[in-house]
Amino acid sequence: MSIVLAIDVGGTKLAGAVVDGRARILGRSRVPSPTGPDPELLYEALLTCCTAALRGADARPGDLAGIGVSCAGPMVWPSGEVSPLNMPAWRRFPLRHRLLREFEVEPVLVHNDAVGVAVGEHWKGAGVGTANLLGMTVSTGVGGGLILGGRLYHGASGNAGHVGHVIAEPDGPRCACGGHGCVEAIAAGPSTVRRALAEGWHPAEGRPADGISLASAAAAGDEIALRNIARAGRAVGIALASCAHLLDLEMVAIVGGFSQSGPPFWDALHGAFATYARMDFAAACQVIPGKLGADAPLLGAAAFVLDSERYGWDPGADR
Amino acid sequence: MSIVLAIDVGGTKLAGAVVDGRARILGRSRVPSPTGPDPELLYEALLTCCTAALRGADARPGDLAGIGVSCAGPMVWPSGEVSPLNMPAWRRFPLRHRLLREFEVEPVLVHNDAVGVAVGEHWKGAGVGTANLLGMTVSTGVGGGLILGGRLYHGASGNAGHVGHVIAEPDGPRCACGGHGCVEAIAAGPSTVRRALAEGWHPAEGRPADGISLASAAAAGDEIALRNIARAGRAVGIALASCAHLLDLEMVAIVGGFSQSGPPFWDALHGAFATYARMDFAAACQVIPGKLGADAPLLGAAAFVLDSERYGWDPGADR
Repeated sequence: MSIVLAIDVGGTKLAGAVVDGRARILGRSRVPSPTGPDPELLYEALLTCCTAALRGADARPGDLAGIGVSCAGPMVWPSGEVSPLNMPAWRRFPLRHRLLREFEVEPVLVHNDAVGVAVGEHWKGAGVGTANLLGMTVSTGVGGGLILGGRLYHGASGNAGHVGHVIAEPDGPRCACGGHGCVEAIAAGPSTVRRALAEGWHPAEGRPADGISLASAAAAGDEIALRNIARAGRAVGIALASCAHLLDLEMVAIVGGFSQSGPPFWDALHGAFATYARMDFAAACQVIPGKLGADAPLLGAAAFVLDSERYGWDPGADR
Repeated sequence: MSIVLAIDVGGTKLAGAVVDGRARILGRSRVPSPTGPDPELLYEALLTCCTAALRGADARPGDLAGIGVSCAGPMVWPSGEVSPLNMPAWRRFPLRHRLLREFEVEPVLVHNDAVGVAVGEHWKGAGVGTANLLGMTVSTGVGGGLILGGRLYHGASGNAGHVGHVIAEPDGPRCACGGHGCVEAIAAGPSTVRRALAEGWHPAEGRPADGISLASAAAAGDEIALRNIARAGRAVGIALASCAHLLDLEMVAIVGGFSQSGPPFWDALHGAFATYARMDFAAACQVIPGKLGADAPLLGAAAFVLDSERYGWDPGADR
């Protein structure tokens, strides 16, 4: 059976895994992302992680059918020059090209990590068997990827799936993108925490001011926490109603830390979705949590190569 | 060269045309839509129209490579049982099946008229050469169709492209669909006219209270007309920013009577789009008027059959 090396590059951790066609992880490794300015140090850490995953699977580069990478955006697609927002060491870093040279394996396919999540959830997670799926991440940022007509949809420049910039509150807060009222500006964990802090919320003694603390406060009945998490859920629900109308989706599968904020988030989300998605076909779209958790981007990266008919693409020649 | 019969079924008129592979209209006919409750009378009027188009092209049913139909929605797709909102005579009328039996020609492909517009504009209009296009109609209603990755995208139930129900003002007016602040509730001609009337606008002596009169009033500097047309344009611009982020589109081509309301509409639309679509890839999406005018749904219907690789589908067996 074919095996691939799957890589997940994020601002907090680097992960590598050797994955087979049944989505079994035969070897894996994970290290914190180096935070310094040196692009080579970051790359070396990634290689170390990959080597450990290969060793864990008792595999050599020559055994691989290819390499799939889910990487934090933005990036130039499909050439795979990456500039992850939270990893300033890499600016137009030629990740795909470097991995090609390093492992002498083709194809090497690099895509947005939120696209990796969507593919993972479609391949082996909540979306198995659906033809039209939005996979969405609600975490430090809000992103997504689209499976349409049974295949990964890339868009004109590989940027399709940016559900975080669907507009949920036209008169709402300014977004980092320069726009206003984008879902991400309202519903990302840090946006929600910032609003709660501004309204007077404080995390419990010794706890950080983050989404987990805010969710705990909401669970304990804190009004400010409840109100702001509900606003985040409502923004996601409104945006998803727009997506369901536009794309006639069967399912939206949501992953990411902040999406695990419990009923205050999900009740507001489902309430808003029910209020705004009224046409039968849109109301029929299921909005549910994903199933794969933190492995979604790794399994998606594996599927780019292992199920290229549905999830792959031609990255062009650049060896 | 193959020829097809193309049909456009709308609440005000029925149109038929014989079209060849170069999008030449070899014969055509057009009649007002009968308004009575008799489904057969409406069907007979459509047949008369088709027969006249065939006669104009000196063609017989046996010459046809198929029949394409753009019909006002909603409908059951792909089986083609139509229930046009403004044509109460037809409720789950088996239009596709009737045409199959009548002309003994296959395929007969029936889709939403807004989908026909999008396909027409992609095949031979403003969107030629694009891979990712939203074709949009702003008229009595607001609708659309999507070409993604170079092909017509249908969605789970043939309802993809309902851009009229993307949410532009979450706290805005109630929509006929039951939701709130949908583009259609704000930017359709009748919605805009109704708002202007409520604010004290009156059409000129002897003129109807419609979108054309409102656009004339705006052109003459009427403040209420200007304000309400601008609100319509802004709603479209916000919705399109959401669409451009989600789908990484190259172009949106807009047709329909109310979209011809001139600079008060288009300036507000482009202004809102520029304000809300800030990521480079989204800002790069062109938003322009369509090129085919009233022939767009007819040419799109022809293309369902004539370019089935890109625009066709399998309607299933039901003879």
